[in-house]
Amino acid sequence: MNIDAAKAALAHLDIDEKEASIRASSRDFFWYSPVLKDRLDHVVADFVVRPRNEAEVIEVLKVCYHHDVPVTTRGAGTGNYGQAMPLEGGCVMHLRWMDKVKAVHPGRVIVEPGCLLKDLDAACKEQSGQEIRMFSSTWATATIGGFIAGGSGGVGSCTWGSLRDLGNIIRLRVVTMEEEPRILEFRGEELARVSHAYGTNGIITEIEMPLAPAYDWVEMFVTSKDFMAATRFAQDLANEDGILIKLATVFEAPVAKDYFQRVAPHVEADDTLIGLMVAPHSMDGFQTLLGRSPALNLIYRSDDHDWDRSPGTVFEYGWNHTTLRALKVDPSITYLQVRFGYPNQLDLIEKMREALSPEVLHHLEVLKEGGKVMFAGLSLVKFTTEERLDEIVKIHEDAGAMVFNPHRYTLEEGGRQTVDDRQLKFKREADPKGLLNPGKMIAWDDPDFDFAEMYSYPKIQAAE
Amino acid sequence: MNIDAAKAALAHLDIDEKEASIRASSRDFFWYSPVLKDRLDHVVADFVVRPRNEAEVIEVLKVCYHHDVPVTTRGAGTGNYGQAMPLEGGCVMHLRWMDKVKAVHPGRVIVEPGCLLKDLDAACKEQSGQEIRMFSSTWATATIGGFIAGGSGGVGSCTWGSLRDLGNIIRLRVVTMEEEPRILEFRGEELARVSHAYGTNGIITEIEMPLAPAYDWVEMFVTSKDFMAATRFAQDLANEDGILIKLATVFEAPVAKDYFQRVAPHVEADDTLIGLMVAPHSMDGFQTLLGRSPALNLIYRSDDHDWDRSPGTVFEYGWNHTTLRALKVDPSITYLQVRFGYPNQLDLIEKMREALSPEVLHHLEVLKEGGKVMFAGLSLVKFTTEERLDEIVKIHEDAGAMVFNPHRYTLEEGGRQTVDDRQLKFKREADPKGLLNPGKMIAWDDPDFDFAEMYSYPKIQAAE
Repeated sequence: MNIDAAKAALAHLDIDEKEASIRASSRDFFWYSPVLKDRLDHVVADFVVRPRNEAEVIEVLKVCYHHDVPVTTRGAGTGNYGQAMPLEGGCVMHLRWMDKVKAVHPGRVIVEPGCLLKDLDAACKEQSGQEIRMFSSTWATATIGGFIAGGSGGVGSCTWGSLRDLGNIIRLRVVTMEEEPRILEFRGEELARVSHAYGTNGIITEIEMPLAPAYDWVEMFVTSKDFMAATRFAQDLANEDGILIKLATVFEAPVAKDYFQRVAPHVEADDTLIGLMVAPHSMDGFQTLLGRSPALNLIYRSDDHDWDRSPGTVFEYGWNHTTLRALKVDPSITYLQVRFGYPNQLDLIEKMREALSPEVLHHLEVLKEGGKVMFAGLSLVKFTTEERLDEIVKIHEDAGAMVFNPHRYTLEEGGRQTVDDRQLKFKREADPKGLLNPGKMIAWDDPDFDFAEMYSYPKIQAAE
Repeated sequence: MNIDAAKAALAHLDIDEKEASIRASSRDFFWYSPVLKDRLDHVVADFVVRPRNEAEVIEVLKVCYHHDVPVTTRGAGTGNYGQAMPLEGGCVMHLRWMDKVKAVHPGRVIVEPGCLLKDLDAACKEQSGQEIRMFSSTWATATIGGFIAGGSGGVGSCTWGSLRDLGNIIRLRVVTMEEEPRILEFRGEELARVSHAYGTNGIITEIEMPLAPAYDWVEMFVTSKDFMAATRFAQDLANEDGILIKLATVFEAPVAKDYFQRVAPHVEADDTLIGLMVAPHSMDGFQTLLGRSPALNLIYRSDDHDWDRSPGTVFEYGWNHTTLRALKVDPSITYLQVRFGYPNQLDLIEKMREALSPEVLHHLEVLKEGGKVMFAGLSLVKFTTEERLDEIVKIHEDAGAMVFNPHRYTLEEGGRQTVDDRQLKFKREADPKGLLNPGKMIAWDDPDFDFAEMYSYPKIQAAE
C-alpha cells in the first residue's frame, strides 16, 4: 500500500487531505449499532478523492490498483452497517460530484450515482411529473448510488417490493478495478452482481431506474389502542389493490409518545401509531376502508390539519428514521431488522411481542415480497449487552423470523448469512487484488467461515 | 304503460322510431350465450331516446315515471348478459350523446357515461399522459358508463383488481326515477349501490375514475407446450412486484391454432398461448424472468416483430374477445366465468382441465383479488345442451370454483347468487315503481326465489 505515491498520482483531482473531513468521510451511520460503534469508531481513510466523472473514477481505480491502495466508495454515508467505512484505511472515493440527471423518459431515468434522492425526485417531477418508485427515509441526504449499493428498499416498497426485485433497477454501468479498468453495462440477471454489494466488486458510474407518477401524497397518522388491530389495518390497506399507497408503518406504543416529539402532544402512551402515504385520488377509498374500523382514529393528514407545529414529512418517522428518533431521546436504543414473511407474519409479530415487549418494541414496515403483503420489522431494542442482543436475535430466528443483523459490517451477516456466488464470482473478475472495500465480503476473505460468531476482519486498522 | 303519451311528451328530444334501429338498440352481446339467445332474441323496446345531458335524462325519467313506462339504459350494448335489454319493452335510454370528458387531473378524470373507453383514454393521454386503470376488451366500442354499470373488470385488473374494489371508482353522480327525480353523489361505501347494477336503481350521469400513467405497453405472445407451466409463468409474472403489467392471459391449446386466425400460422395445435401487456420500462425485468423458463417462447412483441400481418392489439384476444373469436369460427362455442381463487387456483385449474378438456378449454385471466394473484376463467365451452352446461357449472362448483353464470340475465345469477341488500334498498328508494330495467333484479321481483333453477321474469315480452 503506497499511499503517498497514489496521492501524488491523483494530485490533479479533487483530493481532501484535511484530517477532520477525512474522518467525517470515513464514517457512516454505523453508530446506530453499539456493537459496530465499539469496533469501527476509530476507522479512518488516508485520503479522500472526489472524482467529477467516470474518467476520473477510472483514473482513481487504476492508480490505486497500481499502488495497492484499498478503495472504499461512498455516497452520503447514510448507511447503517459501516458499509462505506474503509476498514484498512487507504482511499475513500466520494461520488458527490457525480450527481447529474442525464435523461428522464416515460417510466425511467438515467442518473449518476452521486445524485441525492431528493434532487433526483425533483428533477424527475419537474421534467415529467414522475418520481422514483422507492427511496430510503434518508431521501433528503442520501444518494441514489448509495441506495443501490447499500440499501434494500424503503418508502414505496409497500407497492413495488425491494430493490433486488426484477424491474426495480433497469441498468447499472460499472467500472472494474483491474490493471486496465473495464466499463461494463449490467441488466437483468447481471444486476445482482453489483447491487447491494457495498462497492466490493465494482464502482457504479451510471444508473437507470424505473419511475412512477409523482403524486401529492397525502401523509397521515392514525392511532389505535389495539396494536394487532393497527397492524391488520396496515396489512388490509396494502391488500386493497385499488388503493395506491407509498408507505404503511406501524409503531408499537409507546414509541410515538416517547420518541416522536411533535406527535407526542397528540397521542397517549398506549397509542399504537400508523404512518401512511396515500395517493390523493385514493383518499376516498382509504377513508372508506378506515371507516370500517371505527376503533382507529385519523389524527393527522398533511393536506388538512390544525396541528400547531407540523410534524414534518411522515416518511421521516419510518424506516431507519424511527431508530434515529428513538436514539436521540434514549441513547441506549438500537434496533433489529426482521423479516415477518407471508403467510405467518401476523402470528410471528404477535409472538415476538408477547415474548419481548417492551424490551423490544415493534416498528413494522409493510412490504411486498413475491406479490404478497408482509412486514419488515425494524424493531427498537433497549440495548443492554451484546450477549442479550444475540439472544434476542436467536429468539426471532427460533420462531421462524429471519433476522438481517444490522450489528455486522459484512454483506453476508447483514444478509441471509450465505455467500452470494454471483457477487463473489464477479469480484474475482473485477477486483483481482481484493482492493475494493476490503473486509466486507467474508466469502472473499475466509470461504470457510461458519457464522458461529461475528466476523472480525483480520486486517482492520488497529484502534489507537 | 302509456307509450304514446310518453313519446309525445318527449318528442322534442332525440327519439329513434325506426324499427331496425330500435331493434338494434334493444340488444347487447347476449347471443354469446345459447341459453340467453333462446330466451331474449325477440326482446325489443317501444322507442329509443338519446338524451344530450343530465337535464334531459331527468326529463325522460320523470315522463316515463308518470306514464309507467319502463326505462332500460344502455351504453354501447357490448355486455353479454342481456343487461341492456328491455325485457318488458318500453323505453331504451341510450347515453351515446353524453360523452364529454369534463376534466382531467393528476390521477383522476371526470367524464360522462356515454364516452367510449377508447375516446376517454385518448383524451386522458393527450391532456396528461394518463389512461384509465382498467377496461373491457371492447375498449374500442364500449362506454365508460356501461363498463361501470355492467362490467366487473378487465385489462388492467391483473394490477388494479376489479371495479368493485375500493379506489377503482371515485364518484358516481346518479339520477333517481321518482315523481321528482333526485340527483345524488355517491362515494365510498355508497358506490356499491349503483355500480354493476345494470341501471336497475338509478342512472349514472357523471363518473369520476382514477387514472394511471399511459405507457406504450409492449404487447406480446408467448407459447409453451406445457399448459400448467404457462399458467404458472403468468402467475409468477404477476407476482413480480417490480414488473408493471396490464394483461396476462393464458389460452389452452388448441385455442390459438383454431380460433386466432392471425396467430395460427405462428403456433402449433399443442401450443398454449400467453397474451401479455408489459410496460416498456419493465421489459428488462420481464425478459429476465422469461429467460428463467427456457421452455417458453416469445413469438411476438408489438414493438419488434416480423409477422407479415399484425395480429392487432393483443388485449383484443383476451377477456370477452376470446369467446367472440372462437364463436366466429365455431358457432357452437360458448363460455363460462369461473373464479379460481387464491390459494387453490392452480390446483383447481388443473383439476378442471383433467375433468373437462377439451369440451371445456381454459382461457385464464390473471386478476388481483384482496392483494393476491388469482385467475378469472372465461372458459370456452363446446355447447351441446343446457343440461350439460348446467352439469359443467356444477362440476366447477363442487370442486370449489365459483361460477358467475353468463347464461343468466339477472344480477344475482350472474353474480354470487345472493341478494345485494345495498342495491335492493337503494332501488326501493330510487325506483319506487320498479320501472328501471325491470326483470334484472330478482330480489325486487321475487324475494323468496331459491336459485334452484334459472329465473324467468314473469313479465318478459312474449315471443311472437
